[in-house]
Amino acid sequence: MNANGQLHPARSVKGDGSRRRDDDDVEGRYELGQYGYGKNSVKLLHVCRDGAFHTIREYEVSTHLKLFSKKDFIVGDNKDIIATDTQKNTVYILAKKYGVESPEEFALLVCSHFLYTYRHVVEASVRVEEYPWERLQVDQQDHNHAFIFSPRAVRFCTVTQKRNAGPRIIGGLRDLRVLKTTQSAFTDFIQDEYSTLPDANDRIFSTIVTATWEYSTANDVDFDAVWKTVKECILDQFAGPPDTGIFSPSVQNTLYLAERMILDRVEQISRIDMAMPNKHYFTLDLSKFPLSIIQGENKEVYQPVDKPSGIIHAMLERKQQAMAKL
Amino acid sequence: MNANGQLHPARSVKGDGSRRRDDDDVEGRYELGQYGYGKNSVKLLHVCRDGAFHTIREYEVSTHLKLFSKKDFIVGDNKDIIATDTQKNTVYILAKKYGVESPEEFALLVCSHFLYTYRHVVEASVRVEEYPWERLQVDQQDHNHAFIFSPRAVRFCTVTQKRNAGPRIIGGLRDLRVLKTTQSAFTDFIQDEYSTLPDANDRIFSTIVTATWEYSTANDVDFDAVWKTVKECILDQFAGPPDTGIFSPSVQNTLYLAERMILDRVEQISRIDMAMPNKHYFTLDLSKFPLSIIQGENKEVYQPVDKPSGIIHAMLERKQQAMAKL
Amino acid sequence: MNANGQLHPARSVKGDGSRRRDDDDVEGRYELGQYGYGKNSVKLLHVCRDGAFHTIREYEVSTHLKLFSKKDFIVGDNKDIIATDTQKNTVYILAKKYGVESPEEFALLVCSHFLYTYRHVVEASVRVEEYPWERLQVDQQDHNHAFIFSPRAVRFCTVTQKRNAGPRIIGGLRDLRVLKTTQSAFTDFIQDEYSTLPDANDRIFSTIVTATWEYSTANDVDFDAVWKTVKECILDQFAGPPDTGIFSPSVQNTLYLAERMILDRVEQISRIDMAMPNKHYFTLDLSKFPLSIIQGENKEVYQPVDKPSGIIHAMLERKQQAMAKL
Amino acid sequence: MNANGQLHPARSVKGDGSRRRDDDDVEGRYELGQYGYGKNSVKLLHVCRDGAFHTIREYEVSTHLKLFSKKDFIVGDNKDIIATDTQKNTVYILAKKYGVESPEEFALLVCSHFLYTYRHVVEASVRVEEYPWERLQVDQQDHNHAFIFSPRAVRFCTVTQKRNAGPRIIGGLRDLRVLKTTQSAFTDFIQDEYSTLPDANDRIFSTIVTATWEYSTANDVDFDAVWKTVKECILDQFAGPPDTGIFSPSVQNTLYLAERMILDRVEQISRIDMAMPNKHYFTLDLSKFPLSIIQGENKEVYQPVDKPSGIIHAMLERKQQAMAKL
Repeated sequence: MNANGQLHPARSVKGDGSRRRDDDDVEGRYELGQYGYGKNSVKLLHVCRDGAFHTIREYEVSTHLKLFSKKDFIVGDNKDIIATDTQKNTVYILAKKYGVESPEEFALLVCSHFLYTYRHVVEASVRVEEYPWERLQVDQQDHNHAFIFSPRAVRFCTVTQKRNAGPRIIGGLRDLRVLKTTQSAFTDFIQDEYSTLPDANDRIFSTIVTATWEYSTANDVDFDAVWKTVKECILDQFAGPPDTGIFSPSVQNTLYLAERMILDRVEQISRIDMAMPNKHYFTLDLSKFPLSIIQGENKEVYQPVDKPSGIIHAMLERKQQAMAKL
Repeated sequence: MNANGQLHPARSVKGDGSRRRDDDDVEGRYELGQYGYGKNSVKLLHVCRDGAFHTIREYEVSTHLKLFSKKDFIVGDNKDIIATDTQKNTVYILAKKYGVESPEEFALLVCSHFLYTYRHVVEASVRVEEYPWERLQVDQQDHNHAFIFSPRAVRFCTVTQKRNAGPRIIGGLRDLRVLKTTQSAFTDFIQDEYSTLPDANDRIFSTIVTATWEYSTANDVDFDAVWKTVKECILDQFAGPPDTGIFSPSVQNTLYLAERMILDRVEQISRIDMAMPNKHYFTLDLSKFPLSIIQGENKEVYQPVDKPSGIIHAMLERKQQAMAKL
Repeated sequence: MNANGQLHPARSVKGDGSRRRDDDDVEGRYELGQYGYGKNSVKLLHVCRDGAFHTIREYEVSTHLKLFSKKDFIVGDNKDIIATDTQKNTVYILAKKYGVESPEEFALLVCSHFLYTYRHVVEASVRVEEYPWERLQVDQQDHNHAFIFSPRAVRFCTVTQKRNAGPRIIGGLRDLRVLKTTQSAFTDFIQDEYSTLPDANDRIFSTIVTATWEYSTANDVDFDAVWKTVKECILDQFAGPPDTGIFSPSVQNTLYLAERMILDRVEQISRIDMAMPNKHYFTLDLSKFPLSIIQGENKEVYQPVDKPSGIIHAMLERKQQAMAKL
Repeated sequence: MNANGQLHPARSVKGDGSRRRDDDDVEGRYELGQYGYGKNSVKLLHVCRDGAFHTIREYEVSTHLKLFSKKDFIVGDNKDIIATDTQKNTVYILAKKYGVESPEEFALLVCSHFLYTYRHVVEASVRVEEYPWERLQVDQQDHNHAFIFSPRAVRFCTVTQKRNAGPRIIGGLRDLRVLKTTQSAFTDFIQDEYSTLPDANDRIFSTIVTATWEYSTANDVDFDAVWKTVKECILDQFAGPPDTGIFSPSVQNTLYLAERMILDRVEQISRIDMAMPNKHYFTLDLSKFPLSIIQGENKEVYQPVDKPSGIIHAMLERKQQAMAKL
């Protein structure tokens, strides 16, 4: 079925090294839907030097642009292209010129720069992922200029802005991994001929949380504070009070309660989407071994399982928000 | 700002170990949008033994279900839950009972099983990723039962089916990595105060292709053949004839031409979406070293760059297809 | 050059399905050097339940055994083999029976079990890698049973023991990633026709530390405390006092000073080996852009570089220790 | 236990910004053992343009040097340091000047350059890892300039050379992943109170092979051909003839036979070391499900297991070789 030299004469190289530049898609049978281009993974460290006290933020920035014209795709005409190399330069220049506050604010800045500077850009989208550096503590004191990588959770955001429209701001958190040894059950689910799992009244519960949320506004938001609040709500609904904990009847319910708490606490969040894989820890059945080597009930030794994992996800949104969209 | 025991009295554990089961969301302020749960990464090897001639397919299967009721999320009532462990069992039982043909057909089978067996499932979604095993060749002969892992490209698919609706079938290919040493240029793009990249008339072009496509039908499709055709079209438009190659004026144009060829060749594909990062290989500037150690133009030594990379993506769809949806 | 069916008549399958079991290596031309087998990545969670207060340790354990006989390799005789599945069982049974203290103590236990139980084992080696769980803090209080994954550094160890000999205990730390924004220079190195790097009087210094160290004894060692001390010494020599920091003239010197501090502090460590990649952060040269868009010296924006990285390593040992071995 | 400013007065920063440069190790209590530094992961693509026919090799090169003096470590004196940046430059310059043949030959070239150019280098070590590019085939024809990434196995090597000594050349292969569905058993191993695994007369055998081998000479070796021969021997002993296969009584024996075949075939290899994890595929026990949904013996559906895995390794060497070293 595949190619010989004759297969695509219309778009083969001509003798003079040029190619046909007219729109090949004359028949109008196909249509470009979503399209765009950009630069992925521009790495950036910003150091703010306030005398001897230095502050850093390390980002990996991805920029995506959608141009008005599709001629770069369809006929190979590059005249409107803002080279991805230029996009990279722009990220560094803007960081130098305006500094770097939160990921969300930097992404907003980059989006508006592209829309303002190039009139043929119809949409700009910027993703920022922050490296989880923390200031080093020495004898309970903040170090002036030394930092330690502390990936308890990774922060990211995506800002998308169409020309003549407000920005859409998505905050995000991932790789927050937690485990509790009690206060989790899973019972009363469907038992049929395909099921073999017994009810569990007291099981280990471990998950790696991902959450993304949409802001209803960009005004007067303390993005750093919101991110911390989201993380705290998740931890709170997962772990509960330090002495008694909080009972979880299912991953589903715990996820829902965390989402609800977040909407309760942060009014600038219009919707939140979370995913929580159920990282299983199986109780080992040691009864198959002779009593001469092992006896007694096993409540201590568990087998962690990497694959498969359960996966639970849900998005919770404010009703009026949903209405406002209709 | 964070929790003390009083923070969420309505949903805390009661003295008797039970919890409030009524819908806490009485105020009706929030609403669950997308939600669901399932099992990720169920690993499965299927061996078909035709006498001494064995055939294998190794899959990683993920199943996701959406139930009619949301009470598992909202009030922790598990009565409708088909445990993710049961979903795992089901994957193995169906593989044993019906065998395993293509990823798409197996995903269709699993979807329809869940919808048929459990009336309260409103949507089933199954993703299958195939491990790239190839039959071993010994002296140009097929080996009867030995296989080698050959990850030139990974195949995957996602099938989603709502109750009382036809399945939506998405085929996919990723990690197809290619490079060509000539017949690629990038010129005539915007030069302004943010740009530093010069025109390149003859550059190295390397990318790692991802493609996903939607089928307009599930009937009479040879899914294995389509996957191969998609891969061949991509290679054909990237590489061109073995002697002269094919000229690429930009990643954008090459991506578009590959998509167009695929729609030309496979009529059951209604739309195709591709992403091609531009994995840069920079020509080294050796002119900064003294002539005593190196001289002459450098057309041999390049520096591969992992990050950042350009990224180009576009979706091409049939027009009548687009219309039929309105 | 490769195989046809005739290539290896001596060890091909016989018509009766069996194979020659005598020692094929009769000619004595070759000799097995290092050999062994075992189980990699046995995953284990141990929960210690002291009333409501729970403590966890999650390990990934690898066991390796060397048998007296080589007949399993040479003639396919399995009679002496302690199946790797049995080794896995053993890890779980020992964890249940004796509990799990530090990685080092558990590895010592597993080694001695294999040597004691199977007289034909001539050497046992056990590697333990600990998952970096930390107890969750809620309002500055320890949570009774909830934990958060906190991979600031990973702890591991390897214990190897030959029959009739003491154990060799290697402690380890990896993935401790740090960065400082000042108090680092690199000057006065060789400048010749291959060099282009200028002297740097004030550069960013970032590294990901790996350290392994050998204990001279297993008696009366608080392995948990030693691990913490090693980490503290490394941080101390990297970062210095919180206000002024500590000057680093090179990665080499900082690495050496950390090693020396560790030997000074922990007398049960006989030698320490460290590796510190130099994760480069390049100052961006923004002078190529016009003054209309950017001006002034750049002391804020750096470009992190993943590859290549410098790499520095050295092992420091006590002199009398070295002598005692001769 | 940790630092305040007073902890290490001898090596703290002085008021004038300089530091003590004399050898701090005056007491002579400690001694540097193995030490060195270098550049990891220098990425390099070499294109050889023979008219329209282009050939590529993409390498990731790491260089390590050991200097005569240890003063860079001990007192922070950099005067003898060949900066890792200079080492990177050197890799590119040598590639341009002399071209790139096999990984082994390039590593030999780089080692000898460092030893020749810098008299105070006492040992150079170079590791090269090759990216598995293959020339693209179009209609059974070689493409002139297009290549596809084909990671069926990764090739690497390490060359180490001390001053006034011959080079030590280690060839390597990794990530060769294979599976066979029959002709593998594991029986007659130790059954005791810790074992639960039954004898398996016909099991699936899958592994991911790593092999490293030492050359006894650098003269007249076709390194590319040797690498292919090593790979072919491993495949041959794993898979056997295409119709009947070859029986494996254990991973141990198969590994040994592959090593023996390699020493038989390639006389310039003095020793070979291989490691073969046993990637388990468990037969699923479907008997726990009711006959109404599944019946019959299961010989088709297996569960692949990522962790744990068995691990088998051994080194085989020529006897006279071993003797010659004494």
